[in-house]
Amino acid sequence: MREIAERLKRLPGPDRAAAAAAEARQARLTKPPGSLGRLETLAAWLAAWQGRHPPRLDRVRIAVFAGNHGVVARGVSAYPAEVTAQMVANFGAGGAAINQLARAMGAELTVVPLALERPTADFTTAAALTEVELAAAFAAGAMAVEPRTGEPSFDLLCVGEMGIGNTTVAAALAAALLGGTGADWVGRGTGVDDAGLARKAAAVDAALAHHGRALAAPLAALRCVGGRELAAIAGAVLRAREMRVPVVLDGFVATASAAVLAKAAPGALDHAVAGHLSAEAGHGKLLQHIGMGPLLDLGMRLGEASGAAVAIGLLRAAVATHTGMATFEQAGVSDKEA
Amino acid sequence: MREIAERLKRLPGPDRAAAAAAEARQARLTKPPGSLGRLETLAAWLAAWQGRHPPRLDRVRIAVFAGNHGVVARGVSAYPAEVTAQMVANFGAGGAAINQLARAMGAELTVVPLALERPTADFTTAAALTEVELAAAFAAGAMAVEPRTGEPSFDLLCVGEMGIGNTTVAAALAAALLGGTGADWVGRGTGVDDAGLARKAAAVDAALAHHGRALAAPLAALRCVGGRELAAIAGAVLRAREMRVPVVLDGFVATASAAVLAKAAPGALDHAVAGHLSAEAGHGKLLQHIGMGPLLDLGMRLGEASGAAVAIGLLRAAVATHTGMATFEQAGVSDKEA
Repeated sequence: MREIAERLKRLPGPDRAAAAAAEARQARLTKPPGSLGRLETLAAWLAAWQGRHPPRLDRVRIAVFAGNHGVVARGVSAYPAEVTAQMVANFGAGGAAINQLARAMGAELTVVPLALERPTADFTTAAALTEVELAAAFAAGAMAVEPRTGEPSFDLLCVGEMGIGNTTVAAALAAALLGGTGADWVGRGTGVDDAGLARKAAAVDAALAHHGRALAAPLAALRCVGGRELAAIAGAVLRAREMRVPVVLDGFVATASAAVLAKAAPGALDHAVAGHLSAEAGHGKLLQHIGMGPLLDLGMRLGEASGAAVAIGLLRAAVATHTGMATFEQAGVSDKEA
Repeated sequence: MREIAERLKRLPGPDRAAAAAAEARQARLTKPPGSLGRLETLAAWLAAWQGRHPPRLDRVRIAVFAGNHGVVARGVSAYPAEVTAQMVANFGAGGAAINQLARAMGAELTVVPLALERPTADFTTAAALTEVELAAAFAAGAMAVEPRTGEPSFDLLCVGEMGIGNTTVAAALAAALLGGTGADWVGRGTGVDDAGLARKAAAVDAALAHHGRALAAPLAALRCVGGRELAAIAGAVLRAREMRVPVVLDGFVATASAAVLAKAAPGALDHAVAGHLSAEAGHGKLLQHIGMGPLLDLGMRLGEASGAAVAIGLLRAAVATHTGMATFEQAGVSDKEA
């Protein structure tokens, strides 16, 4: 974990020249200033974090990390744990939501199952992961950002997950990072009833009580009450920053994973946006804590990077308008009377 | 106008069997029930109003109607009136925002300039349009929904506009339809200053005072304080209903135009969705009045159907997941424990 902490001290910043070039071009395009709203700020943000102007979205990767969780034994999910592996097989066969969304949005999909046959320890009584397991999962996340040999790096990364029980894990991690109790952070996940919701809150509270002050350091919290797919997301988001790849976060679990970086190093998520506001109860509060405004609010709560994938369309719109529009001079359009 | 009123009494309803088939399929797809949120309801809505299951988005048309307005003489816009024709030329040359968005979203674009050399009458002192002019604009809108001979009809229609001064016109129309004063409905449009905003409110108030009870009937309000592109949008949305083509409305001006139909015949916009919430001040209130929740909220305020065009991506996501996903049985995934 020392190596990760060291990397968090050396994060590259935005390319201010590229951002300035984007803003200068926006002002000359045939539209009233600011009238494309967030599409304009997204284009400048892409330029800043890709480190070039104009920004491009030729190669978009969606990475979905999958893991299993010991806490599932406490009845925190509406689905049995074997569904994680079944859904990974569904991803492989092309039958899941994210397969259709990746195709519709012109993105390539990589699915990374993380030791599904070895669930994490039940975090109510032990650390979920050992240091070695945490490092392995973190590294697996980083690997998913690497292009194939000889190919250019990605222009955008969307991160998401699949893991029965992991909204409980994300709730525990959010509570560890940001305070509050289980009831403050748990939601209905895939659709638990009131009794299931109470079991989720109780499991989080038990974890907070068991680990206590061991949760004070963000990376330690990730190890104690996190999971492999959560660690992989953190690893991918950090590696993307180092490789100048902007990131779109999916919902509650992906955001909680990335929040580890933000708590460990302020500004560590400046290269990331929230693809959407999930219907999972704690997501809005979590986004507020880390200062992110979601791009979409469609009541989605599937995971699989599905919300992030839908947001790709908005980023494509931002790049298409930014790069393709004529300027006032080119089009012979009268500029604003001023 | 009698013919339009007659058509509004004979609106086709939704295809309930197609909607039920969509909902039944949603329940069997490999995801927790409801977890795709609004994507699920959009797929069922498309099925209901296309009158078939599964819904399709093979042919999407974006129609942009352009008009000029006598009220511009009252200093209600930050841009001169000649910009309307200049922007129509820009659409033709492919340099505007909507050209890039249409290409990015896989939609075809049709631009319909409506007698740009003959602005409407200044509605503060006269009816904006004659009955003949209204009927011609309404018919031009309907024409934009017709496919070319021998081609199948469109699967989706996005409607938007270009017209210097037309946020003032839309504010007057909204006030005529829904009550309130100029100050309740005007906004900064393309970016007027405080004095311009006051001129907009004054122009609307003058129009309301001048026309008085003549504004009580929605179609009469459209003639007295509307404009050609607004009438064309109303005509296109009505014709789309008759042809079973679902509609995506753009921002404030498009919504005010369509609201004429909703006021004239309750339910007349059930085949339409609001593509986005515009940053133009009155749009949110207008959507509330007609009971629509926007798909996007990106601070856009350009017009040109740009917000509706970005929303196409969400509808494509809805159709891709609905039609492409595997069912629990197909994928061998365990369903919810219940």
